[in-house]
Amino acid sequence: MTAPEGAAGACPIPSLSYRTVLLGHGSGGRLMHELIEKVFRPLLLPPETRVLNDAAVLDINGLRLAFTTDAFVVDPLVFPGGDIGRLAVNGTINDLAVSGARPLFLSAAFILEEGLPIDTLWQVVESMRRAAEEAGVSIVTGDTKVVDRGKADKLFITTTGIGVVEYEGPLSASEARPGDLVLLNGPIAAHGMAVMLAREQVEFERPICSDTAPLHTLVATMLQTSPRIRCIRDVTRGGLASALNEIATSSQVGIHIDEEAIPIQEEVKGACEILGLDPLHVANEGKLVAVVAREDAPKVLGAMRAHPLGREAAIIGEVVEDHRRLVLLRTRVGGFRVVSMLAGEQLPRIC
Amino acid sequence: MTAPEGAAGACPIPSLSYRTVLLGHGSGGRLMHELIEKVFRPLLLPPETRVLNDAAVLDINGLRLAFTTDAFVVDPLVFPGGDIGRLAVNGTINDLAVSGARPLFLSAAFILEEGLPIDTLWQVVESMRRAAEEAGVSIVTGDTKVVDRGKADKLFITTTGIGVVEYEGPLSASEARPGDLVLLNGPIAAHGMAVMLAREQVEFERPICSDTAPLHTLVATMLQTSPRIRCIRDVTRGGLASALNEIATSSQVGIHIDEEAIPIQEEVKGACEILGLDPLHVANEGKLVAVVAREDAPKVLGAMRAHPLGREAAIIGEVVEDHRRLVLLRTRVGGFRVVSMLAGEQLPRIC
Repeated sequence: MTAPEGAAGACPIPSLSYRTVLLGHGSGGRLMHELIEKVFRPLLLPPETRVLNDAAVLDINGLRLAFTTDAFVVDPLVFPGGDIGRLAVNGTINDLAVSGARPLFLSAAFILEEGLPIDTLWQVVESMRRAAEEAGVSIVTGDTKVVDRGKADKLFITTTGIGVVEYEGPLSASEARPGDLVLLNGPIAAHGMAVMLAREQVEFERPICSDTAPLHTLVATMLQTSPRIRCIRDVTRGGLASALNEIATSSQVGIHIDEEAIPIQEEVKGACEILGLDPLHVANEGKLVAVVAREDAPKVLGAMRAHPLGREAAIIGEVVEDHRRLVLLRTRVGGFRVVSMLAGEQLPRIC
Repeated sequence: MTAPEGAAGACPIPSLSYRTVLLGHGSGGRLMHELIEKVFRPLLLPPETRVLNDAAVLDINGLRLAFTTDAFVVDPLVFPGGDIGRLAVNGTINDLAVSGARPLFLSAAFILEEGLPIDTLWQVVESMRRAAEEAGVSIVTGDTKVVDRGKADKLFITTTGIGVVEYEGPLSASEARPGDLVLLNGPIAAHGMAVMLAREQVEFERPICSDTAPLHTLVATMLQTSPRIRCIRDVTRGGLASALNEIATSSQVGIHIDEEAIPIQEEVKGACEILGLDPLHVANEGKLVAVVAREDAPKVLGAMRAHPLGREAAIIGEVVEDHRRLVLLRTRVGGFRVVSMLAGEQLPRIC
């Protein structure tokens, strides 16, 4: 491609160790963060924006709004427990929720491949309708583009959401302090394994279902319970490992987690072992991790367990002074290992 | 694909004369409207939403916000006068502007094809930065997904925008009344021809440049000049013909336009003739059409001509009582012909 007009003399292209986009740039892990930090942040994002997949919090005439966008390219379109439409609605709701916002309105932009069966489109849109209805949000505007056969894979959806920020606290990945406890709302790695097994058409005795769910009522319950929740993150691409690493880095703290304490379904654990995947790196779509002041952790845990999406909530670790910017896992056998952010790409097109 | 859970017993699939998505479903014309009316509206959009590519106007705690989204899939990524990045920023600004809103914040979601050169990505993002800066809006949040090689075409961008609605009037495609005049801000069909010639690598003596431009300051000037502007539409996919047909249908009026009065550059007209395209159906990205009460039309025209993006503005026709829901063109030779909404697809992936 030739340079757009006026590009000469503009911001210099950063030096990177690769010259093309890699699958890993969409992983939610290290490569994606590098792309955000070196390409998107210097050009697009105001300096106060933390990471690109967070909701931005805007002040418009005194009203505090959260604003977030996500593209969905999951393959296959339908998998046990969900489909791309439900994922697109819930994913955007969750990005708003973990910013302390009450989700209100969504937009949906569709990129369709020529030849996509209308039935498939209908089923996906129907699924979005139901997901929005269940979560109490409205899809109020949209767009449709069609590309020629072979130039997209069936159907991509970008949802963007607006919510009102009602929580007063800071609620940020940079607020974790030594002594805080780390809470998780339930068993990990189900979404990634459900999509992967559906894609590879592998069948296990007991099917693994995606955990896709709208987390906004769970978050609201937690925030009502304690004013000392430091941060909440939805645990999606890049898995629990990436979410915890982001918090450790942003807050300049160490995080210890305990393998024994992290809930995981037996069949998910088994599938990860067979496929050689670390469940800490596998994507979720209905999980959140919260860092909470130690004294309030028991009551926040109680509130989570009383909510249908937090029945298996657990305290999985703590924030420490040592090992700043590192996440350490105490294994079942009692040793410690460093849990890194996902480096390359494990499961492309997981959401 | 198998049906998503619970799809059985849900809304029945509409009867349509095609079973798959056609390129024409992205045209901005009749097929796209049918898809919106039969698939998206019954499932997703609240009944009061007019058409899917309009901005929704939301009331949040007394604040009136416009909210709009657009996917951009233009091929090639760069063309004379612009590129996909500039198009994505300006297109969303314009959707907000014609809703009477002051554009404030944008989000940007990228779908990248594995193997896309980082240089290309940088140039596109750089171009977005400059377009946003020039227009005075901030890109505050985003997302990146990567799909495997061959599953997308280089780079797609979805931009979503928020603006504050400051105009008090109704400003709607259903507000046109017989006697009103139709105003256009400048020569048509340049964007579509620029992209098409770039794609086909046809070179003309004088290059045709896209008209991509942010129209919000022009719209603000117009709205300050007269409280009797009935509606403003940006004239994009589907061309002037589709925009006027939408107004005629929504307002249940006839529209007469005068071929002689419609500005078009000689080289654009020549290119359309050679390629057998009707310039009334060719896309624009910096054009708007306004329906204005007859008594205020001269002063609105004056205000438009005093703005850099309206120097060649013209009164191109009038709203009439007869021929309800039809747009009639008085040709140069004095006859009349019906101007239909674009039926199929003339130029896929024009924006």
